[in-house]
Amino acid sequence: MEPVSAAVSAVLPAGGSGERLGGATPKQFCGLQGRPLVSYAVRAMERVSWISDIIVVVSPENIETMKSIIEKYGHKRVTVVKGGITRHRSIFNGLKVFAENQSSNRLLQKPEVVIIHDAVRPFVEEDILLKVVMAAKEHGAAGAIRPLVSTVIASGEDGCLDHSLERARYRASEMPQAFLFDIIYQAYQQCTDHDLDYGTECLHLALKYCKTNAKLVEGTADLWKVTYKRDLYAAESIIKDSLSQQICIITDVKEAVVQAGFLLHESLKNQVKVEAISISLSKNDSHLQNIFSGECYNFLCINDKEYATEEIQKLVDMLEKSNVPLLYPVVLILVHLNISENISFSIGLEELTKIKKFAREVKKKNILVYGLLIQYKDHFPLQETVNSAAALTMALIKDRNPELIGQLLVA
Amino acid sequence: MEPVSAAVSAVLPAGGSGERLGGATPKQFCGLQGRPLVSYAVRAMERVSWISDIIVVVSPENIETMKSIIEKYGHKRVTVVKGGITRHRSIFNGLKVFAENQSSNRLLQKPEVVIIHDAVRPFVEEDILLKVVMAAKEHGAAGAIRPLVSTVIASGEDGCLDHSLERARYRASEMPQAFLFDIIYQAYQQCTDHDLDYGTECLHLALKYCKTNAKLVEGTADLWKVTYKRDLYAAESIIKDSLSQQICIITDVKEAVVQAGFLLHESLKNQVKVEAISISLSKNDSHLQNIFSGECYNFLCINDKEYATEEIQKLVDMLEKSNVPLLYPVVLILVHLNISENISFSIGLEELTKIKKFAREVKKKNILVYGLLIQYKDHFPLQETVNSAAALTMALIKDRNPELIGQLLVA
Repeated sequence: MEPVSAAVSAVLPAGGSGERLGGATPKQFCGLQGRPLVSYAVRAMERVSWISDIIVVVSPENIETMKSIIEKYGHKRVTVVKGGITRHRSIFNGLKVFAENQSSNRLLQKPEVVIIHDAVRPFVEEDILLKVVMAAKEHGAAGAIRPLVSTVIASGEDGCLDHSLERARYRASEMPQAFLFDIIYQAYQQCTDHDLDYGTECLHLALKYCKTNAKLVEGTADLWKVTYKRDLYAAESIIKDSLSQQICIITDVKEAVVQAGFLLHESLKNQVKVEAISISLSKNDSHLQNIFSGECYNFLCINDKEYATEEIQKLVDMLEKSNVPLLYPVVLILVHLNISENISFSIGLEELTKIKKFAREVKKKNILVYGLLIQYKDHFPLQETVNSAAALTMALIKDRNPELIGQLLVA
Repeated sequence: MEPVSAAVSAVLPAGGSGERLGGATPKQFCGLQGRPLVSYAVRAMERVSWISDIIVVVSPENIETMKSIIEKYGHKRVTVVKGGITRHRSIFNGLKVFAENQSSNRLLQKPEVVIIHDAVRPFVEEDILLKVVMAAKEHGAAGAIRPLVSTVIASGEDGCLDHSLERARYRASEMPQAFLFDIIYQAYQQCTDHDLDYGTECLHLALKYCKTNAKLVEGTADLWKVTYKRDLYAAESIIKDSLSQQICIITDVKEAVVQAGFLLHESLKNQVKVEAISISLSKNDSHLQNIFSGECYNFLCINDKEYATEEIQKLVDMLEKSNVPLLYPVVLILVHLNISENISFSIGLEELTKIKKFAREVKKKNILVYGLLIQYKDHFPLQETVNSAAALTMALIKDRNPELIGQLLVA
């Protein structure tokens, strides 16, 4: 990514009440895979190295909640600021942190460019942030836009159509937006109370008070704002989708186990990126450490012993230490190879109860454990069994269902 | 619902290529719970008794696909019409079926009011259809509207902001819309090629050519148009949500089984509407028939015999005959009560293989079968076990995961 030669900070208004969502919890605090939406937006800013300070503006009653979110998920460079009663008043409060000494917050270094982004747009990429920042440096203001999905119409006083707008001439104004700090701050200082109470569009303020015509930057579809309950459903599915792109198959070094791992690898690799490693779990393996430092949230651990408790506990400990389960739940599938030739093999209820208990414990560390049994006869599982195991694996990592932890599925 | 004193028919344009979705399949043919989106929109019209004819307009290459969808899901009163190369040309073709003798379609009875609705808006309710029809009868034209989610802006030729619209004055024009047939048909007849090629808004045509200011009717949030991949995710979740509102618990008449059903009922009823019946499955029970004719898509069948094959086969046959699984997959959870006092009770692999095979067979009938084992000691399952069984039941009916069929979960 091209470097930004300007001091940049970001303000995230997160004070909305979410009345369009129809729930009691404001949408920015609704959980996606257990983590509040606002944390996703914060993370999206935080991972961009050239953003110095991230100001999250929340309503007074949510300040403590927000602070505990920052602590729980280890967010850095974040300052929580008390919001006003409208969106514009909240953003203005956020900007003041860079310009005015206030009792509640220390004065932060004034940035050249400030990004304004909604807490309820979780999927913003570095690329579009860079584009709006560069455009703001040049034009004074910039904002992401998208084509209109519906025709926009003006209604008359009788509730009838007055006229419809020609769709091609108009755009939806989205976020992120970016401004030279002095421009947007001046604009807010000159605002009328009417602007602060009824306005919603920062680009409009920059135009009205600073004669700055914002540069409009085409954004991608994933910039959309989580507004309705269906948007939460969509966001949840998008996150699950992105978490299920990669899986790591861990086998110990025994031949039969390595072989099973290879067959599963072959069956899975058309659907998902597969990393396979064969290690001795009793040692601290650096290869595994490498995988833990990547973006893999799914692990398939193959063993021929019945629930090799010690090795698995070791793996769980390593996962926990790695911080992988901090932001997203990790799926850990324990594959047990049944190599007994005995056709009337059976699974004891005590054994099942043991896995369930273990899974409940480990869930507290944000690790979802499932069991998977593969029949392995004459040194080979049937292709049908391998395909079934692969299908169950994909179903488990796509669903990430916390209610099904500790269950033993049979391929 | 108040009766409509007018002949009403509907035209559903379904010719879009879905390029914004980013997939090969046009979105109206994407499956939701296995059934194409367009079938949901057709069903939404079909279940309204006062809509006479439903015209689905599809592009020439999809006519056969559309006809097979109508046959497969048993849709009635539907005529498939060949679309044009733009949305307006397709709608015009749909309207012509009521006005001009054409070689490919028989002339249908001209309605007084015609509804126009998108094939990619699956959740339209009778209430809003009635509202736009009544308004169209009075005003000549009517359309559903929604508040704008984003500010709308006009961009200048330099790609910079020209002005932003005051959000409160404008609305998003959605569907359904309704028109006096003569008005919208006249409007289309007078259209220029430019209108037909570049226009998108029917309300605009009625205004421009027939001086008819459409009545605007506030719609609900669920009228939104499936446009992006995230919208398919959202629609899928909404459907799953609505399918998991109700469950029927079926027990045979034995005391222990009835008792288990009662405890599960108690644990489930805070999350879902529960219907419980105790019957002898070997007889044809009219109570069960009543439930089949309702809107229940989830069944929990409790037994103390190990997978009482005959009874379950009977239930599956009844379900199939009832047509319940025609439009949506039905979840059937087979609960096995383990009343053995033996602590080292175990489950044979042969038994598990048998359930899996049965589930695969039954899936062809759109019935998803899962197994659930409940330990039952000293004539009572522990409360913890019952709660766990209820949680697993909810997870299964909410997820409706076809990959997990035939698995035996342990409460």
